[in-house]
Amino acid sequence: MYQTNRLEAFSDGVLAIAITLLVLDLKVPPLDELRSHHEPLARALGAEWPTFAAYVTSFLIIGIIWINHHAVISMIGRIDRAVLFLNLLLLMFVVTVPFTTALLSEYLTAGGGDARTAAVCYSLSMLGMAVTFTLLYGWAVRHPVLLGDGVDPQAVRASFPRFGIGVLVYLATVAVALVSAVACLVVHFAVALYYAFEQTGSASLPLRRRNVG
Amino acid sequence: MYQTNRLEAFSDGVLAIAITLLVLDLKVPPLDELRSHHEPLARALGAEWPTFAAYVTSFLIIGIIWINHHAVISMIGRIDRAVLFLNLLLLMFVVTVPFTTALLSEYLTAGGGDARTAAVCYSLSMLGMAVTFTLLYGWAVRHPVLLGDGVDPQAVRASFPRFGIGVLVYLATVAVALVSAVACLVVHFAVALYYAFEQTGSASLPLRRRNVG
Amino acid sequence: MYQTNRLEAFSDGVLAIAITLLVLDLKVPPLDELRSHHEPLARALGAEWPTFAAYVTSFLIIGIIWINHHAVISMIGRIDRAVLFLNLLLLMFVVTVPFTTALLSEYLTAGGGDARTAAVCYSLSMLGMAVTFTLLYGWAVRHPVLLGDGVDPQAVRASFPRFGIGVLVYLATVAVALVSAVACLVVHFAVALYYAFEQTGSASLPLRRRNVG
Amino acid sequence: MYQTNRLEAFSDGVLAIAITLLVLDLKVPPLDELRSHHEPLARALGAEWPTFAAYVTSFLIIGIIWINHHAVISMIGRIDRAVLFLNLLLLMFVVTVPFTTALLSEYLTAGGGDARTAAVCYSLSMLGMAVTFTLLYGWAVRHPVLLGDGVDPQAVRASFPRFGIGVLVYLATVAVALVSAVACLVVHFAVALYYAFEQTGSASLPLRRRNVG
Repeated sequence: MYQTNRLEAFSDGVLAIAITLLVLDLKVPPLDELRSHHEPLARALGAEWPTFAAYVTSFLIIGIIWINHHAVISMIGRIDRAVLFLNLLLLMFVVTVPFTTALLSEYLTAGGGDARTAAVCYSLSMLGMAVTFTLLYGWAVRHPVLLGDGVDPQAVRASFPRFGIGVLVYLATVAVALVSAVACLVVHFAVALYYAFEQTGSASLPLRRRNVG
Repeated sequence: MYQTNRLEAFSDGVLAIAITLLVLDLKVPPLDELRSHHEPLARALGAEWPTFAAYVTSFLIIGIIWINHHAVISMIGRIDRAVLFLNLLLLMFVVTVPFTTALLSEYLTAGGGDARTAAVCYSLSMLGMAVTFTLLYGWAVRHPVLLGDGVDPQAVRASFPRFGIGVLVYLATVAVALVSAVACLVVHFAVALYYAFEQTGSASLPLRRRNVG
Repeated sequence: MYQTNRLEAFSDGVLAIAITLLVLDLKVPPLDELRSHHEPLARALGAEWPTFAAYVTSFLIIGIIWINHHAVISMIGRIDRAVLFLNLLLLMFVVTVPFTTALLSEYLTAGGGDARTAAVCYSLSMLGMAVTFTLLYGWAVRHPVLLGDGVDPQAVRASFPRFGIGVLVYLATVAVALVSAVACLVVHFAVALYYAFEQTGSASLPLRRRNVG
Repeated sequence: MYQTNRLEAFSDGVLAIAITLLVLDLKVPPLDELRSHHEPLARALGAEWPTFAAYVTSFLIIGIIWINHHAVISMIGRIDRAVLFLNLLLLMFVVTVPFTTALLSEYLTAGGGDARTAAVCYSLSMLGMAVTFTLLYGWAVRHPVLLGDGVDPQAVRASFPRFGIGVLVYLATVAVALVSAVACLVVHFAVALYYAFEQTGSASLPLRRRNVG
């Protein structure tokens, strides 16, 4: 059994770095290149709209993962090796997001099969996060001994289907990616906004009582 | 309701990473290139002065955001989903700073419309931070239940106009950017210095009593 | 003597950043290049399999180092300058991992001596971690005054041979690297999986009693 | 007045990121380039020795700054705006280290004025850290009200000359840089080793009593 505080610190660190590395996807158009094309900077930046759209979407998604991760870990009072390993797998998918975001930015408007390939990769990295997060939560559901004092195992179990729905939603984005890369990004943005604003979100996970410290 | 400690840890992480990624804007002049131009390194580095000026300015700005963020969050005792979301939006603008700094560095001395475009982008990222920070503070003003024990809601409200002034200042930098990119950077540097040294700065926010832990 | 909490925070930070920087090894195939070769993105990504395989392996290895580091530091109650210095050496090797991972990704399928050179470098960075970790643990074994309250020096000493075995294992991976780069990566992956799942892993270090905080 | 814990967390974050970003200075020789030159990877890596030497030296230097920063901040119990600002200036120089390290790596063996220019920049970034650190410590010496409970102002004052000596040492490295870039790097490495091992180092700062926590 381990303490949760260093798991939180490490996970927060990885999430904070991954979300900040998204800025590396925003590319400064090289001055020499623009000069040789007689292209104004404003138009070059405008042409980069897929990059900005993907940046905002991925930022929201990782931000929401952080909020939910926070909620779930604060519910767990004791950590075993399975939780450590599942958390590591979750982070492994989180860390791929700056890559799949850059991939989608580069190929979003390329059209054809390449745009769809990039969108599938993007959706897969999000699906990977949803699946590993669900496995992590599911492990806690089946091992109530891991729950913190005052956390009701019944309420924890009752929240589990919401994670399954998340998996189905991200599975659906893979299907959308096979049809249209732009539609896929729009759906991801809408899903992120929904999760950010929903009333029945992680705030309704059965953790409220104990995390006002 | 959430604890503030993980919000602080995550925000500190993002701010620390964004401020450190500014170093990636400092480019080593490639040896081969200098050789082929018979240009000494000292002169090549001297020609990079916009990069160093933008680096120092952005470093100060993010540093001051960190100081003020610290002050505001320590005033908040309870965090709701709106605070989490507004904080995420604030960080979304903070994380763009290494990008807009690199953009301004590349185009500051390019002159013409491109330099002004870059300066407008730079000012917009700072304006975005000021606006989201003001929304975050305003939310706490209107929801005194979120304030920590011993924090005087009256005093918190009295500090609110200062945030509004910050928004106006950064709005003005957008106007300056439309005239001159260099003037815009100078104004940003002056504003950052002012905020760093002002006596009535965040140190005068009504938080002093409780954050000597 | 120092507190362990800032050592943990700094080490967690370095480990979290190093593990997240692994994403920079994942390269987006440039659109222009694929176009000029009439190569579909899916095939270009498929050809990058050594990069993905090295990413997963290195992610697991740093993740396990983090878990074990966590376990060992929570066992130490007091830190002297030797521990600080050995920990710094350990981190110096950890930080090289994104570099040696990128090196192995680039040369894994190059064949010949270059692939083996890259694999030797990869194994050496892991061996460096194993050796410095063993020195760190060995220092604590020989200076029981550093151990936290309630930690049994006898049990700490009994766990020491496991670290020596780790050094031998990573020494063996250097030998494998001299034969085949692909075999070397496979062995590293297998070793990481073994350490991730083993029952007698760091969970069996004599720390369990005190780190449920 | 502010708490020290978030200052520590932010500073630790910046130091951890700056030290880890040093890995970005280690460059993977591109496979295509080596092929076209018929150059083996082992020889290409061997030719990069200035990069590895500068990496190790800068890693030690930032590591020692972290150890000393830790010691000084744990001595300070209350933080005013001057400490916040001086600490920010210190971090501003720390963050330049990955840049000046990359600069020295690229030009160390270029010979002539360029190598010396790079070495001067490298020394200046270290001198900047020494000066701002001394100003920070000096501020605490002159404002004993900032010292933590149980910290002896007399002992704090007695340690001040050591910081002045550090400034002189780094000033001397600038002079060495004007003569020879390689000698400059060797001196920096020797100084870092000395500080890492010295018995009368920061461990002898008057902080010992209170930071076993």
